[in-house]
Amino acid sequence: MTGNILGERFLVLSFGESHGRCIGAVVDGCPAGLPLSEDDIQHDLDLRRPGLSMVTSERSEEDKVELISGVFNGYTTGAPICALIWNKDVDSKPYEQIRKTPRPGHADLTAFWKYEGYNDWRGGGRFSGRITASFVMAGAIAKKLIHYTLGIEVLAYSIEIGGIKAREVSDDEIRRLRYSNEVRCADLEAAEKMKMKITEEQSKGDSVGGIVECKVFNVPIGLGEPVFSSLESDLSKALFSIPAVKGIEFGIGFEATRLKGSECNDPFSVKEGKIITSSNRAGGILGGISNGMPIVLRLAFKPASSIRKPQKTVHLDTLKEDDLIVPGRHDPCIVPRAVPVVEAVVSCVMADHSIRAGLIPPVIKTRL
Amino acid sequence: MTGNILGERFLVLSFGESHGRCIGAVVDGCPAGLPLSEDDIQHDLDLRRPGLSMVTSERSEEDKVELISGVFNGYTTGAPICALIWNKDVDSKPYEQIRKTPRPGHADLTAFWKYEGYNDWRGGGRFSGRITASFVMAGAIAKKLIHYTLGIEVLAYSIEIGGIKAREVSDDEIRRLRYSNEVRCADLEAAEKMKMKITEEQSKGDSVGGIVECKVFNVPIGLGEPVFSSLESDLSKALFSIPAVKGIEFGIGFEATRLKGSECNDPFSVKEGKIITSSNRAGGILGGISNGMPIVLRLAFKPASSIRKPQKTVHLDTLKEDDLIVPGRHDPCIVPRAVPVVEAVVSCVMADHSIRAGLIPPVIKTRL
Amino acid sequence: MTGNILGERFLVLSFGESHGRCIGAVVDGCPAGLPLSEDDIQHDLDLRRPGLSMVTSERSEEDKVELISGVFNGYTTGAPICALIWNKDVDSKPYEQIRKTPRPGHADLTAFWKYEGYNDWRGGGRFSGRITASFVMAGAIAKKLIHYTLGIEVLAYSIEIGGIKAREVSDDEIRRLRYSNEVRCADLEAAEKMKMKITEEQSKGDSVGGIVECKVFNVPIGLGEPVFSSLESDLSKALFSIPAVKGIEFGIGFEATRLKGSECNDPFSVKEGKIITSSNRAGGILGGISNGMPIVLRLAFKPASSIRKPQKTVHLDTLKEDDLIVPGRHDPCIVPRAVPVVEAVVSCVMADHSIRAGLIPPVIKTRL
Amino acid sequence: MTGNILGERFLVLSFGESHGRCIGAVVDGCPAGLPLSEDDIQHDLDLRRPGLSMVTSERSEEDKVELISGVFNGYTTGAPICALIWNKDVDSKPYEQIRKTPRPGHADLTAFWKYEGYNDWRGGGRFSGRITASFVMAGAIAKKLIHYTLGIEVLAYSIEIGGIKAREVSDDEIRRLRYSNEVRCADLEAAEKMKMKITEEQSKGDSVGGIVECKVFNVPIGLGEPVFSSLESDLSKALFSIPAVKGIEFGIGFEATRLKGSECNDPFSVKEGKIITSSNRAGGILGGISNGMPIVLRLAFKPASSIRKPQKTVHLDTLKEDDLIVPGRHDPCIVPRAVPVVEAVVSCVMADHSIRAGLIPPVIKTRL
Repeated sequence: MTGNILGERFLVLSFGESHGRCIGAVVDGCPAGLPLSEDDIQHDLDLRRPGLSMVTSERSEEDKVELISGVFNGYTTGAPICALIWNKDVDSKPYEQIRKTPRPGHADLTAFWKYEGYNDWRGGGRFSGRITASFVMAGAIAKKLIHYTLGIEVLAYSIEIGGIKAREVSDDEIRRLRYSNEVRCADLEAAEKMKMKITEEQSKGDSVGGIVECKVFNVPIGLGEPVFSSLESDLSKALFSIPAVKGIEFGIGFEATRLKGSECNDPFSVKEGKIITSSNRAGGILGGISNGMPIVLRLAFKPASSIRKPQKTVHLDTLKEDDLIVPGRHDPCIVPRAVPVVEAVVSCVMADHSIRAGLIPPVIKTRL
Repeated sequence: MTGNILGERFLVLSFGESHGRCIGAVVDGCPAGLPLSEDDIQHDLDLRRPGLSMVTSERSEEDKVELISGVFNGYTTGAPICALIWNKDVDSKPYEQIRKTPRPGHADLTAFWKYEGYNDWRGGGRFSGRITASFVMAGAIAKKLIHYTLGIEVLAYSIEIGGIKAREVSDDEIRRLRYSNEVRCADLEAAEKMKMKITEEQSKGDSVGGIVECKVFNVPIGLGEPVFSSLESDLSKALFSIPAVKGIEFGIGFEATRLKGSECNDPFSVKEGKIITSSNRAGGILGGISNGMPIVLRLAFKPASSIRKPQKTVHLDTLKEDDLIVPGRHDPCIVPRAVPVVEAVVSCVMADHSIRAGLIPPVIKTRL
Repeated sequence: MTGNILGERFLVLSFGESHGRCIGAVVDGCPAGLPLSEDDIQHDLDLRRPGLSMVTSERSEEDKVELISGVFNGYTTGAPICALIWNKDVDSKPYEQIRKTPRPGHADLTAFWKYEGYNDWRGGGRFSGRITASFVMAGAIAKKLIHYTLGIEVLAYSIEIGGIKAREVSDDEIRRLRYSNEVRCADLEAAEKMKMKITEEQSKGDSVGGIVECKVFNVPIGLGEPVFSSLESDLSKALFSIPAVKGIEFGIGFEATRLKGSECNDPFSVKEGKIITSSNRAGGILGGISNGMPIVLRLAFKPASSIRKPQKTVHLDTLKEDDLIVPGRHDPCIVPRAVPVVEAVVSCVMADHSIRAGLIPPVIKTRL
Repeated sequence: MTGNILGERFLVLSFGESHGRCIGAVVDGCPAGLPLSEDDIQHDLDLRRPGLSMVTSERSEEDKVELISGVFNGYTTGAPICALIWNKDVDSKPYEQIRKTPRPGHADLTAFWKYEGYNDWRGGGRFSGRITASFVMAGAIAKKLIHYTLGIEVLAYSIEIGGIKAREVSDDEIRRLRYSNEVRCADLEAAEKMKMKITEEQSKGDSVGGIVECKVFNVPIGLGEPVFSSLESDLSKALFSIPAVKGIEFGIGFEATRLKGSECNDPFSVKEGKIITSSNRAGGILGGISNGMPIVLRLAFKPASSIRKPQKTVHLDTLKEDDLIVPGRHDPCIVPRAVPVVEAVVSCVMADHSIRAGLIPPVIKTRL
């Protein structure tokens, strides 16, 4: 298997470059019989599109998806589904300027080394945040699949940006409010402050990071294949593909390290004839297997690396140290646009494991 | 691919059960020509063996490894290497007692659900910490391979146990001191306190968690296959296979979420004619690709779930809530024994990616 | 892994449908630094294009390839390469007529059963010979890669059509003459007869089959990973993906079953200081591993299944038996157009195994 | 994925060497809840055991299987199943004698080249026919699984040995008679002649080849994942792992190349309310997908390569040509012992595809 492929049975292949002709995704393994249209995908793509607000990059892309295979008469056919968006608002000049002076915190230098200069460096190429559009396209299909067949619901939202923490809000508020504001936070008061913080740092030529939380509801019991394809293993593998992610935790995560066993273990109890845990410090996963409680995870996003503040770099030809002011259009905080990406990636993993567990058949029984 | 397999080109298959006949690992894809003996593996197995000290389980297993394939005349042959330890000190009685009352915080219930009762529940079966012996066997081969061919060095050590943090120590101290004490901590003063903390909580029938840090030195530039097989992706996937891990972070990890871009980006500079970063907040990985700086990661271990303090559980047959006092022999803190496991797992991923990057050939050129 | 993917390190994903919007292929794992243009691919696509002669289908498709990712400044970048042709001359009416009366010898019925009617049946959908255009696009990249780096040469050609056998001709004649005629046969006299035979049967509303032979020259020693990824294993797996293939043999193949060991074994001898075999009954593969002699294989193609002669079928709704005269445009013999497809598929497998054996590095060292 | 692994969801890993400590197989992905004992496996192993008759090698191995993981209380647990036989009657002296003079027709030289001398050459190491014992162990599990859950039946048998062809016999005779004689042929008259032929050639220091046919009954409709994991693709890949196989054909195979479409296509008809084909020239597979008719395939086995007749070889050190009389104990015809191996390998592929098609769930519902 190669690096641009995710999953075993719901398999995603990502292709395309930031300033190339397109960004694309192929999904192979999606069961036949799922109602699917370009609108299903467009909806999610629109949530991560650049140019939507003051707090995101000014690059203006319509990101209009085309489904060029695998769908027939409004249903998936069981064949590979290829989804594409064409790149239109491409301006590679700023990248030519900095081609020999790699941006600190970015993949410029490691990509140059790994591919010995052959990589498409324009706009960051395969290392651009724009590549996550392919995750969103595949994820929209996954999201529809798992919701349509199993009722699984995946919600991501910002809980901290630039040091400003959101208060805990109800699942219902998360559901309703997370996309109501530019920073994708369900605590509207915090959202306002986060937005101001981003704008403030942006005006200084700097950037901020933050934390995205994701909850998955209606998770079937028994997902996850121990030991190396535990649900935590496969979720983390997939989520670290999102640029700028530097940490992940499930349930209470790092906080668990300071608790005693008696404080950390979730007691079992009975509710409506079913065994549940009366708390959910485990985040819905025990022994790598889903236990039916909501999956809860959090991702650490570092601040965006492309900033206007001068930074130390080294010229690739002369090996002389140099000051770099990154030109071009960049997000001052990638957290808001990462939120739909997180939902997409988590959905892909849930789809893959649902199929592996035999819970979604190769053909979905609906009426034609 | 199935759940008990890790890696693409340096591939590990884990088998065996805690109270079955054996624990085993098969490594397929190890290049031919690597000098390898049972001693190489035994050394690492001994570091995770139970029964070694007051702070670990009293189960007494010799854990003597047998290499039953893939090695000939002291060298690997290119064929699959099967390594085995036989289980000897098995006492399944305590597990019979609690078979119908799943332990909170453990995989008892999810395993029962997933396998509908067919799973080998004795000693936790495939979900026991004992399974990590298979990781250590495979990891010892990987560790030898990457050190022998590329000089890569993998060091793990406890940096926090039961809330007690170690001070930062030099890499050299880590190298020398981490295995000098029962809690695998290179800060000897903290080590002493950690040990006391473990014993104290154990005496109360409770357990503690902690944090393991791992550094990898002499990492070749260019490891990691974007986007879904980034080095962070594959390391995290592998490491979440270790029971009780609930979080992972690379470099400064979650701390990065509160910094500005100008504070977080590692500036480039030149040292001995090579481009390096003058700090290492990224933890040696940029854009999913190794940059030649040491890889740094940290793992959150929750407190051991098997404790003597009474906990709430539910009887599987009656669905009545019940109090459970976990019988049997259990580690009051799994962090110390996890340290060599972390080294092993990280070594497997480094070996896999080194082969994928073409840095280790199918036959190692040494003299026969 | 899913069904539309071939290979491990030089990985091909095929997508698209016969009467959908396009036929596409993504190649992931192609090393960076290979000079590649659309012309390289167009050349091979033109060799399998329909509408070229009297002996092939009248569907007229330009099959103009577009490379929409993975190539930059004329070189591969190490990123996934997506190649596309758009379908233009689509006429699905004949397929609507026969939708409920599956064609004998074709996948109509099994596809209907497997996908419960959701499959895109227009033009045979994913089961059309047109899908092999995706093999040719990927194969052209593979062919260039293995020739550019290792000098490997792959030649396929018809050796029997409709019962007419070609005489054995020299490798040089094969090289020069196989594409000089419509039936892709290097024995020009036989070629003429084959063409007449095809036309004759076509005029009767019938079709013919035949045999394609393929030789691979300059094969590096040591390709093939025993036991399950032997070179024969992976070649046969790949080649059975070509519609209408019903048999494969290597070297003397089935003839070997009637020889004695002393007649079948190829004796070793020395030539220019190297060990060779003085005959090549093994077809260049011993123990699943290439031995440096030319690889020789033959493929049995059944006669094309879509014929105008009336055949017995069953109506899917009424379950009544019915006579079927297949409408639409079909090849009376698919062997000629299969020849470049065989070259393509063999090239993909050779590329994959060359990379797996460490013979082609992740970046090809040429000058930018 | 590496070379010693077969399958995706019913995954087989083969390990061990001919003269090493053992031969082993790990099956990962076998559903939980299958009744399984060592007897199930021993039965099939006994059918391929050496030393059973005059027409097979004199090496005397008990080949007593041990199940060392994955089975508990008589049922599979869903965990990896490791099955082992220990090597006992090992005599490596003959192989030391010929170490530098590779046997024509055998893997000695290609293995030496590929592994640069590190491979375990004793008894042919990984290239020995003895490795197929690992296929049989895995296959016995697969065979039980597909028969227990879906009623699939796999029958292999010799139809030609040393040029002597068996007459066509009924399926019932095949079922009853194939293992009633040493050459595994259901035509008892031919069996007697085959046996005489083998003995005759053996007495002259020579060997013979032959053809094994395999039929699979009660095949569910819809197995096979187009295009690259067609049923023919995956069966052929798996079967070419059996040493000495040089050709494979499905249905009428190569004979189809000489028929017209109207003669080759199987007409559809209705039987007991179901659509069937009234002939089965396709061998049960259309478009790579099973159509419910029996799968029929034939394998060409070359004559055994290890013969006592002098053959030309080359000394590896001196590069001088030399005469070789192969010492040691060898089968004069491997066809009889290959018969249970073919059944095993076909069963593994059928199990894998049955699981992939969602026909066998992760847990088999039986009563504990």
